[in-house]
Amino acid sequence: MKNFMDNKNRAVVRVPGTSANCGAGFDCLGLATTIYNYLDLTLLKKNKLVVESAGEGAENIPRGKRNLAWQAVQRLLKEIGRADEFKGAIIKTKNNVPISRGLGSSSTAIVGGLVAANEIFGSPLDKNGLLKLATEIEGHPDNVAPAIFGGFTVSVMDKGAVQTFSFLPRIKLKLIVAVPDFELSTRLARKVLPKNVSMRDAIFNISRASMLIAALVEGREEFLPFAFDDALHQPYRKKLVPGMTEVFDAAKSAGALGAAISGAGSCLIAFTAAKSGLENKIAAAMVEEFKNHDVSAKALILNVDKHGAQILKR
Amino acid sequence: MKNFMDNKNRAVVRVPGTSANCGAGFDCLGLATTIYNYLDLTLLKKNKLVVESAGEGAENIPRGKRNLAWQAVQRLLKEIGRADEFKGAIIKTKNNVPISRGLGSSSTAIVGGLVAANEIFGSPLDKNGLLKLATEIEGHPDNVAPAIFGGFTVSVMDKGAVQTFSFLPRIKLKLIVAVPDFELSTRLARKVLPKNVSMRDAIFNISRASMLIAALVEGREEFLPFAFDDALHQPYRKKLVPGMTEVFDAAKSAGALGAAISGAGSCLIAFTAAKSGLENKIAAAMVEEFKNHDVSAKALILNVDKHGAQILKR
Repeated sequence: MKNFMDNKNRAVVRVPGTSANCGAGFDCLGLATTIYNYLDLTLLKKNKLVVESAGEGAENIPRGKRNLAWQAVQRLLKEIGRADEFKGAIIKTKNNVPISRGLGSSSTAIVGGLVAANEIFGSPLDKNGLLKLATEIEGHPDNVAPAIFGGFTVSVMDKGAVQTFSFLPRIKLKLIVAVPDFELSTRLARKVLPKNVSMRDAIFNISRASMLIAALVEGREEFLPFAFDDALHQPYRKKLVPGMTEVFDAAKSAGALGAAISGAGSCLIAFTAAKSGLENKIAAAMVEEFKNHDVSAKALILNVDKHGAQILKR
Repeated sequence: MKNFMDNKNRAVVRVPGTSANCGAGFDCLGLATTIYNYLDLTLLKKNKLVVESAGEGAENIPRGKRNLAWQAVQRLLKEIGRADEFKGAIIKTKNNVPISRGLGSSSTAIVGGLVAANEIFGSPLDKNGLLKLATEIEGHPDNVAPAIFGGFTVSVMDKGAVQTFSFLPRIKLKLIVAVPDFELSTRLARKVLPKNVSMRDAIFNISRASMLIAALVEGREEFLPFAFDDALHQPYRKKLVPGMTEVFDAAKSAGALGAAISGAGSCLIAFTAAKSGLENKIAAAMVEEFKNHDVSAKALILNVDKHGAQILKR
């Protein structure tokens, strides 16, 4: 055991679950939360892949070459020119982040694989380097960015390259996530979106996303009730999440500052100031309202993760 | 003269010129600048209106009941229930803000009238109260908000009411405004915009406006080069401002962090950090490039106004 623990080709990382969009910040905002997946990577010189999964969705995680964490590990090895040397791996994961619910579970695998492999070689890539690879694998930065940086992130795609600004809000927030008992594929949730939107709806979101960032960074809670609403994606996705609007209303009636679909759903996320002490009341209201729409849901009460992916063992 | 100066029905205010949009923040962002219009208001009990204007566009400022400042004064009197008592006014303005160029000259008249009249009655309305009236008169908050609050403003229209967040950036900026020798009506500049836009372009602006706010509030200059670009209005308005794209490029080549149409134009505004010392170089590059497109322009080098409308005399 000791031998194994001291293996210089091994690293263990913790990666936060994430919530993209936050309503108005469609396809650019994200935040890291205090629910974590763990990934234990040992690189092997021989061509052998062992994947062991425990926790959320363990039975459905691919154990072969389609395993996302392994794909990420290979991408990093290729990037740093060590792919010929390390042809296999033992990957053990313990997952707490619900699968296919809009909490960035696939991003935890990608970021976990990248960060662990990077650590084994003495961190040749910095966070921006990891972000570039993670965005390439995932196809967009919405969840991988907060999973890497922690806090809230604003990502801009500029000439094919991603630029991410990360910040911690000056308001201590509680996040209330209602997790329905059904999965929602990101592909389906993308498919229901229109290619064109009205200028009015675009401005609706630009103004609110800007207000959200300003209010969070400056710590002005009184502006948050105007900042989470969205006109660009949620109106089209509400048919995929029964009771969405009503659950938002229930959360706000219970005192939430705002509520939104987490990523592409199916989770809904509500926000309150930690000092309000309302998180349990909001959670109960959301679960209860889901029940009115014949959806069984559980609630998670989380904080904003400040650190992003962390090395636990080397 | 002394009698006149001490007139309790008189107030003199200074109102900043403003620049709306800042590129990505279409129809919600604005900033106040250190170019000012002055308004000297004396309320009269008798039904008599005297308007005297000096400075920019003096010859075109209506002297009758269509005078914007007078309309604003009347709106305030009505709001506070004193319209029956004061039926006339002497309004003297001295204007430095170029007219119909996208620097909020009409907003200075509206805000000047409101703030001066409000001051005469001991400020019964606070800034948000003034903003509500000013937005009602102007039709949108883009310029009146920064003219009232100073600094940068983010405005959200929520159920017909305006909510404005104002902040001072943690980067000391220099604003370089190229003022072409032609006016551009906001009505025309609105008319060229499409009613619908692609989702991709909407996200382009949401992400950049969010990045702009985050970078300004947190004082992270390195993110500003990704933050000013726009896909929603400038591409359609460039035909109204000959050489627009090339002037932006010239400003950036000379070291500007970004450039944008000021409001609905015709001015173009570029941004640099004060510590760069590049403002004169950028100004010269913009004026020169305008000349290549047969546009004669002058440059203003301004700072961000921190205070909004100020009472100078009571």
